[in-house]
Amino acid sequence: MTYTAVELIELKRDGGALPFDAIAWLIDSYTQGTVPDYQMAAMLMAIFHQGLNDAELGAWTEAMLHSGETLDLSDIDLPKVDKHSTGGVGDKVSIPLAPIVAACGVAVPMMSGRGLGHTGGTLDKLESIPGYTTALDPDRFRSILSEHGLVLAGQSEVMVPADREIYSLRDATATVPSIPLIASSIMSKKLAEDLDGLLLDVKQGSGAFMEDLQEARRLAKTMVGIGSNHGVAVVAFITSMDQPLGREVGNANEIRESLDVLRGQGPADLTELTLTFAEAMLELGGVPGGRERVEEAVESGAALEKFRDLVSAHGGDVAVVDEPKNLPEAGYEERIVAPRAGHVHRCDARTIGTASTRLGAGRQRKEDAVDHAVGITLLAKIGDRVAEGDALATVAFNDPALFESQRDRLASAWLIEDDPVQAPILVVERIS
Amino acid sequence: MTYTAVELIELKRDGGALPFDAIAWLIDSYTQGTVPDYQMAAMLMAIFHQGLNDAELGAWTEAMLHSGETLDLSDIDLPKVDKHSTGGVGDKVSIPLAPIVAACGVAVPMMSGRGLGHTGGTLDKLESIPGYTTALDPDRFRSILSEHGLVLAGQSEVMVPADREIYSLRDATATVPSIPLIASSIMSKKLAEDLDGLLLDVKQGSGAFMEDLQEARRLAKTMVGIGSNHGVAVVAFITSMDQPLGREVGNANEIRESLDVLRGQGPADLTELTLTFAEAMLELGGVPGGRERVEEAVESGAALEKFRDLVSAHGGDVAVVDEPKNLPEAGYEERIVAPRAGHVHRCDARTIGTASTRLGAGRQRKEDAVDHAVGITLLAKIGDRVAEGDALATVAFNDPALFESQRDRLASAWLIEDDPVQAPILVVERIS
Repeated sequence: MTYTAVELIELKRDGGALPFDAIAWLIDSYTQGTVPDYQMAAMLMAIFHQGLNDAELGAWTEAMLHSGETLDLSDIDLPKVDKHSTGGVGDKVSIPLAPIVAACGVAVPMMSGRGLGHTGGTLDKLESIPGYTTALDPDRFRSILSEHGLVLAGQSEVMVPADREIYSLRDATATVPSIPLIASSIMSKKLAEDLDGLLLDVKQGSGAFMEDLQEARRLAKTMVGIGSNHGVAVVAFITSMDQPLGREVGNANEIRESLDVLRGQGPADLTELTLTFAEAMLELGGVPGGRERVEEAVESGAALEKFRDLVSAHGGDVAVVDEPKNLPEAGYEERIVAPRAGHVHRCDARTIGTASTRLGAGRQRKEDAVDHAVGITLLAKIGDRVAEGDALATVAFNDPALFESQRDRLASAWLIEDDPVQAPILVVERIS
Repeated sequence: MTYTAVELIELKRDGGALPFDAIAWLIDSYTQGTVPDYQMAAMLMAIFHQGLNDAELGAWTEAMLHSGETLDLSDIDLPKVDKHSTGGVGDKVSIPLAPIVAACGVAVPMMSGRGLGHTGGTLDKLESIPGYTTALDPDRFRSILSEHGLVLAGQSEVMVPADREIYSLRDATATVPSIPLIASSIMSKKLAEDLDGLLLDVKQGSGAFMEDLQEARRLAKTMVGIGSNHGVAVVAFITSMDQPLGREVGNANEIRESLDVLRGQGPADLTELTLTFAEAMLELGGVPGGRERVEEAVESGAALEKFRDLVSAHGGDVAVVDEPKNLPEAGYEERIVAPRAGHVHRCDARTIGTASTRLGAGRQRKEDAVDHAVGITLLAKIGDRVAEGDALATVAFNDPALFESQRDRLASAWLIEDDPVQAPILVVERIS
């Protein structure tokens, strides 16, 4: 069959299903530049309104996945399992998680992203370690994985180019928040990694891209379905992102806290989520031992040792692993204090993430540089009791004017009331 | 307020209403080239799905109307009334209508279009008169109107450029059939003509762009509403387009039949519609006399004389007015015959229009040339009784292979059955 873009747009516009080979033709033609941006933009908005059925979603993901090179990790004997989070504030789980899982005998070929909007990105965090390189060619990626059982890098330019182009277009055409488009974007990148298993952390709440639980559930189920159609075992967790995860937000801050987790000294919520995910990744990789084995990897120091290997293999300064003071530090520090005594009812993730981004820890536009040293340390989270004048957070910054511009915003993140309250449940649901 | 295109797309995507000044900014920025095609494409698809409310529609039309120059006809004392048809097959009404109305003392500053798809266009038909120029600069347009009380030309490039650009984009992004976009496109062009009144012929049926009566009614009401918000009196007729109007389809063919109407010798359906519209245009212009005056303009020869003036003013050969044989003639003629005796139940406008276009009377792409000589003369229409072997139509053509490729299609337009049937009612509804 031959197709024209306008016929396919019309079909989707009216709620029809695009044939498998039509989707392959469209994605290929768009990547080659023979279907112009404006036709793909109209198609994306039609998909936003009409959706994609399971068969279309499989075809769309498949076409993106094959738009560039894919990894071949068949020479690595270990089971290969990756983890992806839809993004939140203070979500540094990948950084302690990968070495823990690798220390248990599951290979982790992790390709991560950068921060955008109010959320941070794993690559930006890792780059606060002096010398750590996240840009690897496929050979170097494979050789680090083969030698150490883990690698944490950015995605190569030669992989899934269709996703990069379509993502930029979605960003400019208000078609980002479409479940089939989000699901196919994430899954095409992950399926290109030649995995045996994948753990998905679908964040839900004020600091997540999905505020609504029903939507988060739909996204999780959609991605699990795509995985199983491609023969990859997928487990999805829906986890709460109403307040930041852990106590640190910012790049160097989050590396410090990740090292705490690897030393068995991390905050309870972050530690719990990391170990829960590690256990699930062992399961996905068919590696026995469960929670005990995961805890042992931390207590024995094996996981910390794996992280040291990882930093070294990526060209990073391993001195920071033993002495986190070698991480970049900001020139100034200020406190945000409690205006009254009481119990913390809100410690809003989106507000704190936005303030951190504006202080320089994140990007407002893709071309912005990141200040690795700035960050926010949370001293009071939901459920905590505070006295008037207690510090709610300390803020590390390099530009006093910027700090002043964010002080009120940041202070507004907390709501303190008289009655006691429980901290939110972290793991809302597990879907597989 | 300052806006970004992506915020406005998001607002419309979610069913919100675009502010008046945001619409002005968007149309202006798109016309200036600072909002790219892909953002406008996403907006158009969002409008396709979410619509525009009355205030938005007024603002959108207003912004298009002011994207270029507008006519100022205030120095012409006569009432100025134009007519627009949404397009059909054999719809040559404008050509006899304009001179009849002008002969009754209403000025007709008519800007028409070309054929596209299965329908013909007034400009293509007029250009089958040797020498007739449809491209006029605004001064020449005004001077012909001023001298003769009518002018039939194409729209100047300097008027409503936003509509031309948006229309091309709609054509490439499957966003043509959107009622607010159709209505604002038509009305922005007509409101730029400085009219006192406007008659709209909304075609409905197999040969129209609107097959559905409800949709045709929505479009008609929408356009009447835009007109009244701009202080222009608008009357809309919904008319049947299941079979071609009159007996002639093709460019020179339709000029011949238009001359028949001006001589009082046209077919009943075409004559009736022309005179009904003429009467309504007199009403819109506040000119008394009604149907009698209109009929008198034909019977007295005044309307034919006006047409002669028009052709002459546009540089055309007036010899064709008195001797239609001077119009281009095709080299070949064939008949389509009735395969059985009975009553004609179907004489399908879209099928006949498509065959005529493929024979060369219309365009499949904008850049195609038109063959003015080819055409189809219908000898049997709905309700007519035929014997086996009677001619249903004669076809004039220049390329025998093309004719052979269309013969079966054309024959399939007729359905002949045993029981008698009435011809369809022509004027379905009048909306004002």
